[in-house]
Amino acid sequence: MSTMQPRTIHGVGLGPGSQDLMSVRADRLIRQASHVAYFRKKGRTGHARSIVDGMLAPDVIELPMEYPVTTEIPFHDPRYNALLADFYATSVARLAEIAETGGDVVVLCEGDPFFYGSFMHLYARLQGRVPVAVVPGITGMSAAWTATGQPVTWGDDIMTVLMGTLPEATLAEHMTKTDALVVMKIGRNLDKVGRALARAGRVDEAWLIEYAAMPQERVLPFRDAGDSAPYFSILLVHGQGRRP
Amino acid sequence: MSTMQPRTIHGVGLGPGSQDLMSVRADRLIRQASHVAYFRKKGRTGHARSIVDGMLAPDVIELPMEYPVTTEIPFHDPRYNALLADFYATSVARLAEIAETGGDVVVLCEGDPFFYGSFMHLYARLQGRVPVAVVPGITGMSAAWTATGQPVTWGDDIMTVLMGTLPEATLAEHMTKTDALVVMKIGRNLDKVGRALARAGRVDEAWLIEYAAMPQERVLPFRDAGDSAPYFSILLVHGQGRRP
Repeated sequence: MSTMQPRTIHGVGLGPGSQDLMSVRADRLIRQASHVAYFRKKGRTGHARSIVDGMLAPDVIELPMEYPVTTEIPFHDPRYNALLADFYATSVARLAEIAETGGDVVVLCEGDPFFYGSFMHLYARLQGRVPVAVVPGITGMSAAWTATGQPVTWGDDIMTVLMGTLPEATLAEHMTKTDALVVMKIGRNLDKVGRALARAGRVDEAWLIEYAAMPQERVLPFRDAGDSAPYFSILLVHGQGRRP
Repeated sequence: MSTMQPRTIHGVGLGPGSQDLMSVRADRLIRQASHVAYFRKKGRTGHARSIVDGMLAPDVIELPMEYPVTTEIPFHDPRYNALLADFYATSVARLAEIAETGGDVVVLCEGDPFFYGSFMHLYARLQGRVPVAVVPGITGMSAAWTATGQPVTWGDDIMTVLMGTLPEATLAEHMTKTDALVVMKIGRNLDKVGRALARAGRVDEAWLIEYAAMPQERVLPFRDAGDSAPYFSILLVHGQGRRP
């Protein structure tokens, strides 16, 4: 085992998906990294990896971390948690060993690393073993409200962020009590999210933003949404607070 | 009057305050701009202006926009709104005229332009007159949770963003019902925010982050906060959602 000081592992926020919307710090770390790690589904390029296309050093070592499950097992099944816990432990062991033997590791994180997302599961397990530094990023929701061409919050507006995976009644209650609203993880929850919005009486104020800040970006009134929404979809209701 | 096509005015998010946390797109627009506009208090440098120190072109034309009121008139006084409305109208006329006569204008916006903040008051008034493009930025709250070294949201966590200017009962109600919590505009509302947190039973989970991502950055348990907090203070409660 090496006795050298371990290098810092960087969890780097890539922002919403456009290369020039990552921070100057992220851009620099990614171009200089000797090792770049990222999550992906088996058999896919991985969205995080595709964002940095053309930016990596020619001799970079890539470390794809392939999810053992995605949708085959429901997330409330105990096997889901056990499989993921193993996967994160294995990934962490691999990254920590590289950092402990002098390698620079950048973990590519879509959006902002500490705002939902998967990096935090590595982060929690790396604590106390090797130093970890986190670079915040522009969130997907910022890109979504920017795409609508309308400010999301004014004055004293209350903003609530909900996941489409929550129960319908919970969604509806929070949708009723907030000014500005963001709903993520919509995908297969589109119907339920729509019913909750209707219970809250807010369907006509809602927008659906698909692929915010990406080439396929699309903004449509929520009532014009079809039967399904892509994974990169965000529902938005703008606040209408005080304005001089 | 010129008959040329007006240039686009760019509302550019600077992020939380560290120069290398602005986006690559923001960095490029700011360095190339012929005119740079920003809000400030009379007699001050202005925080937005100080963030870009050393980045502006040598022959840049600076357009400070000085608030006519800050704290002298309470914001519920009708004179406050009238004064601000005049101020925004005058500022917009000046920026639009430059864009209409071929000048590149970048408006410097702390954080993310569409997430609270002042730029949106110009934006709303520029609509239909000259083209306006908005560059999102890393929010102050992202910098705040990054500073705590703990993820803010996991799994299905609900996140609520509140302004310290809201009534105590409203604050307490929303603090009770959310998982993750962000409170901004704390400053002179510190006592009220603390009472609301106590009513919600969440004082011991709360952190105060001062000057996130700035050289004076400081993270402390909310219970150790003194009698006042600087303007750049954010209160945070981390979500504790599902984690494998």
